[in-house]
This record gives sequence, C-alpha cells and structure tokens, in this order.
Amino acid sequence: MSKHIGESTVELTSRPRISSWSATAGQKENEGPLGHTFDLILDDDLLGQNTWELAEAAMLRDTVRRCLDKVKLQTTDIDMLLSGDLINQIMAAHFCARELSIPFLGLYGACSTMSESLALGGMLVDSGAARRAVCAVSSHFSTAERQYRSPLEQGGQRPASAQWTVTGAGAALLCGKEYIPEAVKPAAALTHATIGRVVDYGVKDMANMGAVMAPAAADTLAKHLRDIGRTADYYDEIITGDLGKVGRELMLELLSEKGIKFDPKRVWDCGARIFSPEQDAHAGGSGCGCSAVTLNGYILNRFAKGELNHVAFMATGALLNSTSVLQGETIPGIAHLVVLERDLK
Amino acid sequence: MSKHIGESTVELTSRPRISSWSATAGQKENEGPLGHTFDLILDDDLLGQNTWELAEAAMLRDTVRRCLDKVKLQTTDIDMLLSGDLINQIMAAHFCARELSIPFLGLYGACSTMSESLALGGMLVDSGAARRAVCAVSSHFSTAERQYRSPLEQGGQRPASAQWTVTGAGAALLCGKEYIPEAVKPAAALTHATIGRVVDYGVKDMANMGAVMAPAAADTLAKHLRDIGRTADYYDEIITGDLGKVGRELMLELLSEKGIKFDPKRVWDCGARIFSPEQDAHAGGSGCGCSAVTLNGYILNRFAKGELNHVAFMATGALLNSTSVLQGETIPGIAHLVVLERDLK
Repeated sequence: MSKHIGESTVELTSRPRISSWSATAGQKENEGPLGHTFDLILDDDLLGQNTWELAEAAMLRDTVRRCLDKVKLQTTDIDMLLSGDLINQIMAAHFCARELSIPFLGLYGACSTMSESLALGGMLVDSGAARRAVCAVSSHFSTAERQYRSPLEQGGQRPASAQWTVTGAGAALLCGKEYIPEAVKPAAALTHATIGRVVDYGVKDMANMGAVMAPAAADTLAKHLRDIGRTADYYDEIITGDLGKVGRELMLELLSEKGIKFDPKRVWDCGARIFSPEQDAHAGGSGCGCSAVTLNGYILNRFAKGELNHVAFMATGALLNSTSVLQGETIPGIAHLVVLERDLK
Repeated sequence: MSKHIGESTVELTSRPRISSWSATAGQKENEGPLGHTFDLILDDDLLGQNTWELAEAAMLRDTVRRCLDKVKLQTTDIDMLLSGDLINQIMAAHFCARELSIPFLGLYGACSTMSESLALGGMLVDSGAARRAVCAVSSHFSTAERQYRSPLEQGGQRPASAQWTVTGAGAALLCGKEYIPEAVKPAAALTHATIGRVVDYGVKDMANMGAVMAPAAADTLAKHLRDIGRTADYYDEIITGDLGKVGRELMLELLSEKGIKFDPKRVWDCGARIFSPEQDAHAGGSGCGCSAVTLNGYILNRFAKGELNHVAFMATGALLNSTSVLQGETIPGIAHLVVLERDLK
C-alpha cells in the first residue's frame, strides 16, 4: 500500500525488494573504472545480429534472462516487464519483450528510464498489482549515434561538454516480500519514489546534455528532501545518472543556490564515473544504459556486500528528438528519484 | 489495494473513478459519425503554432487543461500525469508536460497508450500512490505522416488496408474515492486492467496495421476473460482501438478460433467507427488519438448518460519504427485492456 507524501513523493510501505540484478556492457565500458562490476562484457557489440538495433534488443533480452537465471526464476514467474530504451518507438524494448512474452509496459523517459521503471515497478509491487516485476533498460552507442548525431563516418569533432552513449543494459527484479525466491537475499529495498516534472532552462545545445538535465535533477532532489523531511546527509550517497562532469557541477551549483547543504564527495554521477579521463569520453557517459549498468553492477553489488545503507538513485533524461533540435526548440529535462535501503529483514 | 488475478490481470479493488474527461479533434474527425461527442473541434490544426509537432503538444496540453477545468481543478491538484504520443521520443507529451508542470511519467505503447495509461494510472490511484492522476494521449495526422510515411506531397496511393491517423487528444482524470471533487459525478469506475504482451505474427506491411494488432488484441481479450472467469457477454460492449475494419475482422476470426463466444454486434472498433465510408479513410482511423477521443467523447459520455454499464476498453498498438520497417523486420503488436463499470455509488 503506497502513501503519497508532500508534492511528488510516494512511500512504498511494503518495501519491494530488489532480489536480483544484472548488467551487461561493452568493451569501452569494461575498460572504465566500473568494468569489474558487470556480469557480462560483450565481445562483439553486434551480438551476432545483422543490425545494431537487433543487437541492442538481444543485449536487453539476455540481461533480463540472466537476472532471472541468477535466482532460478522463469519468465512465467514475472507479472510485468517495465522497459524502455532510446531507439525511436523504444524498438529494443519491444523486440526484447516479444521474445520474453512477459506482460509488458513500455516506458520512455530518455536516460531517466532506469529510475522511472523502478519508481513505477516499485509502486506496482507495493500495491500488489504485480508480485514480481522486472525493470530493464538499455542503450547502445551505435544505435544512438545513428539516430541522434552526425554519421560516425563523418568524423566530426566532439565538444568537451559532449557525452559518450554507453553500450549496456541493466535489469532489476522487484519482488513483494512473500514473492522473494527461496534462499535469495535481496540487495536492497525500495522505500520511496519521487516523480520528477519536465523542466526546461532554455538550453538548445544537444552536445551539452548535462546542462539540460542538471536543473531537473536539482528540482527533483530538492522536492524529495522537502517532501520526506530529510537532509541530504541522511544518504550515504546521492547518485545521479547521467549528468556527466559538466552537468554534475551545474547541479551542485543549483543545489547550493536552493540552500541545500550536502557533502559533494557523497554526491556522484554515473556518467562522470563510468569512464576514466584517459578514455576520451569528454564529459562522461550517457544513455539509459549508463545509470542502468552502474546501478545493476557497481551500486547493487555494494549493497549486497553491506557497503551501502541508504542511497538516493536519480537517473536523469534529456527530452529531445532529432526533429525538435532541427526545429530550434529548447531541450527539456526530467529526473526521477528512488530510495534504496539496505534490507536488514 | 490491487490484486493480481490469473496470468495478466489486476483487480483495482478501490475502483478509481473517471471523474472528468475531455476530447479534442480535427475537422475530418468532426465530420465523422462521432463528431458531435468531442468537446472541441480544431479550426486550425496548426493551433497557431509554427510546426505540427508544437501543434500536437498544444492540443494535448489544452485537452488536459479542459479536463481539469470541467471539474474546477488546478494542475497542482494532480499528483501524476501519465502520457505518451507517436512522435519520436514522445515529444508532444514532453512539451505538454513542460507547461503543465505536473509530475510526469512518460509512456510509449504506440496506439495502445490510452489504455496503457489508464491501466497504470488506475493501479497508481488504487494503491494510494496518486490521489488524482491524469491519463492523456494524442496523435496528429501531419506529425505521423511526416514521421512514418511517404511525404504527403508525393501523393502516393493508399491501399485499402491503410488507416488514417486521427488528429485528436483525449484526457481522463482518475480519482481515488476520497479525492473526487465535490459535486462531481464520475462517469465510470476502473475495476480491472489486463496487461498485454508483445505478439508478432510476422506481418511486415506497414499499410496493414490492423493485421499487426489483431493477434495481440485477441490474445489480451482471451487472457482477460480467462483470468477473470467471465464470458464475453458480461460486457455491454467490447471496444477495441484502433484495429480498423480489416483488423477487426481478423480479431473476430482469431477469437472464434480460440473458442470464445461473442456477439459481433457488441464488439466494435474505434478505428472502424470514427470515420464514415464516404470519408476516404480506407480501413478506418488510427493513432493514439483515435481510441483516446472515442473514449473521452463518445464512450464516457454514454456512461454519464447511463447508457452503458460494463465495458471492456482495449486500445491496440503496432510496435514499429521507420528503421525497423526499412530493415525488413516484422511488426509486433500489443493490446492492453481496462474494464469500465458504471459507478452507482
């Protein structure tokens, strides 16, 4: 049973458990600082498929399967799959869902989709609508480049504020308390979700997504803390994704302007952390897969090891399409936040 | 508090109420048999905007506002907006949400989005996560033609199985029982939702969306009846959208093959009904807006007048994008079903 708190926050009173999690990533991601935390590294980022789009769908499907295999569940044990990606009309999610045959809810939140799916999945499991739900998202460097940017063959120079789309997929299994598979120890419980609104500060530069998303991230975090009556230091870590280095700095500035006190060492960004400075990824990683693999690798592994107790996870999205950019429109952003708590019961 | 029933159905035990509803449509839709049921007909399908995309966003935003105005609510009275459309990266929904500033959940279910949003919104209101939620979707003939099909200027001939994208937007306000505005009489209660899975029968013809969606519709309806232990004749009407004339015939055939007994006069399709045969729309209407305006005009008005008691509303979606079609992929389909019951309390 959920409880609406304040302006935009929902308390998930039954504390849905993240009972399995899995991350798949590409070679470049493997070479970054978080590479050792992913379950599977792709040898071939085409996965033997004929197109990048089918490759992304196959990566997402295999990640969901691995997430279920880990706790010996079948697709038929899952009531709902909540999923989305960046390809037009979320093609990867649909082609993945076609093979898995789990009742499917298609989401689009750009790079915020990992936390959107956890927020929605958490609410559905909390209410009893779903006993078990899988939240899964992906992105692929080559499908994103084809769709959003100059052809790779053109070899255009990337500005320092640009981010690099992560090739990766993450899946998390949410279970109601009575539906946790036997002998499985969940990594964390979902206790709250704060649903973001669409915020637009007038940025038009699609090579500066960090600046687009930072205001939405600051807005959602400020609202979350106010709704729930907590200060930022309640959280061991506040993790955003994927603001990148430029966006992270802007968000910290905006938080300070709003009078929010925080320890900047405990506020970090998936996009700023996934690649090392030597990897030529400029402002960092992006794409739904960026926060998804960081959550379903690095973050949840640390929960499982007992290294984390309270985390605010907030994936962020830039809400553009190629038409809106060509038409000269500004780019709005969004951020959704979920609270992960170590599950001690 | 929700209850998962059978394979894919959720019972919404608190019966969220549809407390306001609004539909906006274009001139061609106004000239069809349902024209008299829409709240507003567009004089200018650009709505004074510079682009079709901004026009669609403005239409969607104004439809949500009108839905709230009717029951004297402000946007700040709404906990969540669940919305989607057909433009890449659901641009209309995002640009609409940017102005409304309601906490936003972006959905993509192609033309099934009206029932996807009602299913999700219903579950969120049922659980207490949202006290009031607005479910709103749109489509626009000119944004869809630009994105999915040959340029209009080319004047290519449309096959008889082709459908015509509806210019229209629909919005429905869902309220928890204690949050129905004073003196407002809801049209209907949402009692069940059946979440569809992605089904693919191998159709590749994007001018025959009815054939793509019919198997998904038959699958979801069959599952719904089995989950809930009802026969089709429980429902006054079973309403699909937007299979069109070709898809409707195929669905009826598939239902008969599955051994489901029904009265074909009580199973009708929004796409097949929205235009008259003289309107040169071939197999009928399509687009998220097709089922949305039919629901938020014709169907809910009839509930309000006491002409309907039990309805299964099932919007259907064809899950293609322009890349997948060019790559020669088959087109999967999906259908979600919600049950509307006359609210006698």
